[in-house]
Amino acid sequence: MRVEHLGTADTPGEFVSRAVELLELSFGGIAGDRHFGLTMEAGVRQKHVPRGTVLRNTRQLSLVSLEELGDLARALALPRLDYRWLGANVCVSDVDDFTALPASTRLVFDSGAIVVVDSDNRPCTKAGRAIVAAAQAPESLAQDFVTASRHRRGLVGWVEREGLIRVGDRVTVVRRQA
Amino acid sequence: MRVEHLGTADTPGEFVSRAVELLELSFGGIAGDRHFGLTMEAGVRQKHVPRGTVLRNTRQLSLVSLEELGDLARALALPRLDYRWLGANVCVSDVDDFTALPASTRLVFDSGAIVVVDSDNRPCTKAGRAIVAAAQAPESLAQDFVTASRHRRGLVGWVEREGLIRVGDRVTVVRRQA
Repeated sequence: MRVEHLGTADTPGEFVSRAVELLELSFGGIAGDRHFGLTMEAGVRQKHVPRGTVLRNTRQLSLVSLEELGDLARALALPRLDYRWLGANVCVSDVDDFTALPASTRLVFDSGAIVVVDSDNRPCTKAGRAIVAAAQAPESLAQDFVTASRHRRGLVGWVEREGLIRVGDRVTVVRRQA
Repeated sequence: MRVEHLGTADTPGEFVSRAVELLELSFGGIAGDRHFGLTMEAGVRQKHVPRGTVLRNTRQLSLVSLEELGDLARALALPRLDYRWLGANVCVSDVDDFTALPASTRLVFDSGAIVVVDSDNRPCTKAGRAIVAAAQAPESLAQDFVTASRHRRGLVGWVEREGLIRVGDRVTVVRRQA
């Protein structure tokens, strides 16, 4: 697995991310990014607690794969799907079924920085609407995206070990030992 | 699932935990306990990094079940096995195959406090030696414990939501959605 692109969602009020060459990962995630923090407030995805509950942040980074973005673009009949439109921080390549990596899988980058997989990223219409705007696609695509991107929307995770990550990094996958 | 016993390992130099009626869980774990901290240093169990590497702490609490402790006592021909000898913080009852609960499972206590399962607790001779001392068993039991307790040594986890937990609490298991 290899890092193809990096991004940060640090523009206020903006869902799409901005391309960068490197990211500094700290225990809070990516400083300045909208998902930065040691804690987070529960949203609709955290169905086991009331909305707004303060939880330890397990959704610091959004990660997607080039292969799944390609599949998804074809399923939606789009010429391409840009990782930034999904608000992603890391876009990797050279991996099959990236979204299927189980919770607790460790992704180790060249510097030694480690991101732990929390879960797959449940699709939402926010990303769908961002694609509609960016690709100048029909409004109906926002909902089609939710259906089409299930199991290929990528992963969310949190920083286990601090460090820099860079475009071009190799990523080693360490699966939870049985 | 129900909380039968709670304990804290807050005696310097002591592996065995001390029974308490309630524990206050914060994002660092249990204040005063030897595993307290937002971060931890990697040990022999974290094979994906050099020993001493600073990692986000995923081993704040040790949890065991009364049922598995009973099985384990029988396997080791001991009249009983006390959760404190294993340095455990939480001993639950009324659950099958507690150690088999997968990573990312949420344990929700009455107050709303939540512990997330990081992994099963890989047996070590430290607990084995503590049992030898406490149960006045032969030295060889320390090694027998490592073998016998595989898959019934309980779990380690970290605090996702802060709150009090008490002996007698009901525990709701929220499995990671597929």
